[in-house]
Amino acid sequence: MKVQEVIDRVIFDTCGTNKLEVTADKLMSGSADMEVKGIVTTFMATVDVIKQAVELGANMIITHEPTFYTGMDDIEWLERDPVYLAKKKLIEENGIAIWRFHDHMHMGHTDRIYDGLLNDIGWEPFLMKKHPPHTYTIEETTLGELASFFKKRLNMQVIQIIGDPAMKCSKVGILVGGGSLGLGREQMPMELMRDQDLDVMVCGEILEWTLCAYVNDAQMLGMNKAMLVLGHERSEESGMKHMAQWLSPLVSGIPVTFVEAGEPFTYL
Amino acid sequence: MKVQEVIDRVIFDTCGTNKLEVTADKLMSGSADMEVKGIVTTFMATVDVIKQAVELGANMIITHEPTFYTGMDDIEWLERDPVYLAKKKLIEENGIAIWRFHDHMHMGHTDRIYDGLLNDIGWEPFLMKKHPPHTYTIEETTLGELASFFKKRLNMQVIQIIGDPAMKCSKVGILVGGGSLGLGREQMPMELMRDQDLDVMVCGEILEWTLCAYVNDAQMLGMNKAMLVLGHERSEESGMKHMAQWLSPLVSGIPVTFVEAGEPFTYL
Repeated sequence: MKVQEVIDRVIFDTCGTNKLEVTADKLMSGSADMEVKGIVTTFMATVDVIKQAVELGANMIITHEPTFYTGMDDIEWLERDPVYLAKKKLIEENGIAIWRFHDHMHMGHTDRIYDGLLNDIGWEPFLMKKHPPHTYTIEETTLGELASFFKKRLNMQVIQIIGDPAMKCSKVGILVGGGSLGLGREQMPMELMRDQDLDVMVCGEILEWTLCAYVNDAQMLGMNKAMLVLGHERSEESGMKHMAQWLSPLVSGIPVTFVEAGEPFTYL
Repeated sequence: MKVQEVIDRVIFDTCGTNKLEVTADKLMSGSADMEVKGIVTTFMATVDVIKQAVELGANMIITHEPTFYTGMDDIEWLERDPVYLAKKKLIEENGIAIWRFHDHMHMGHTDRIYDGLLNDIGWEPFLMKKHPPHTYTIEETTLGELASFFKKRLNMQVIQIIGDPAMKCSKVGILVGGGSLGLGREQMPMELMRDQDLDVMVCGEILEWTLCAYVNDAQMLGMNKAMLVLGHERSEESGMKHMAQWLSPLVSGIPVTFVEAGEPFTYL
């Protein structure tokens, strides 16, 4: 099976014929007519992920996030960049096709990044409504217990929170990845929290002057509000792990392996 | 002295006659002709900062960041928001004028946010060039020691890093607040790091798909690159502490007090 056929099958399975003309989902290396020997799915095709793909004998990486450091993977500014050139060399010497699967993944029949996260945290029964999968009513717990739950399920070293760990909570919002920045509308995460009367927002990326400031003021005013920060990678990687499972039967015979990009940070 | 006169003196002292027409530096509460009894400077006029201002007998707060949760402090979407309404009530019942001093502060004769940070970390002698104050050559140290230095000087509980704590470094970049997002150009922090051949970038806000990914790949490729994340508040609060010192002689007789907004997060 060729790279283009893998791409076509993934998009059709996810979105049917609802295919985007303008999209970040581009083939960043390799060519559409390469024969695929093995596929790796990952949150981000980092240098270490590429090396692991090579070791696995895979020659196609499906990455959720950019390969080259900007939202649209522009490479013009990188022409003489030593990081880019060394990474490009690694990719080309090993004949790896890297395809980004981002926009279509979020706009599928279901958002397949959330599907993976819900699989890992077991929250599908708690969905307040199916689409979009942003709001949950869970059994009452405390913020501290909820933080421990996410740390354990998503294998996190440290979690950033706003609010009192003893605070009771049951109505929880989740906005993964860059979604917690508001998708072009800074107010969005706060409007969601207010309109759905949520106790806690669980976030991917954050900005300190928007939702963080809102939740911080709310709890200072004695309101039952709090926030957990998972970060971009921790909140979305489960979706790419889950993908390895549903992709496998679509590309019968080609080995599909999930490789964890991992959180880039350590905490001191 | 009236609120407007304080504002005029602050802007003139910082920027001379170089005054912006379109700016986020707006009076968010109170009126220009209020008589000022006391001034509080802070990174953000949170509910707790407002309460401390009231206790101090101050009726004007000069805040670097928004009062109402978006970059331009729009309040239309907040008309029936319980957090906004409770904060507004607190402000109005105590007759507090809140003025944002952001854009002019960064575009002064010197960037007065950096002035404050340099004061707290003692790095002025290490500036590679004065304007902009983004690059430093320090005595060789390790990433781990540099992280400890910032934690101690800026009183941080936890610091996020990318890279090997044992890595040697001497060329360091600093982009405070939202500057590390690139100021409208995602590539900017990476171009700065590359063009100035920096070992470490010290950041305010971050996005995982831009500089974080670039530094992570660079260190995986064996390059001498790393990153420290201070966060928005920790990287900019020093500027507002410093402001209390230079503002005092401009408003002779009116008490000026710095009140620390504090990092909104705790770490579990």
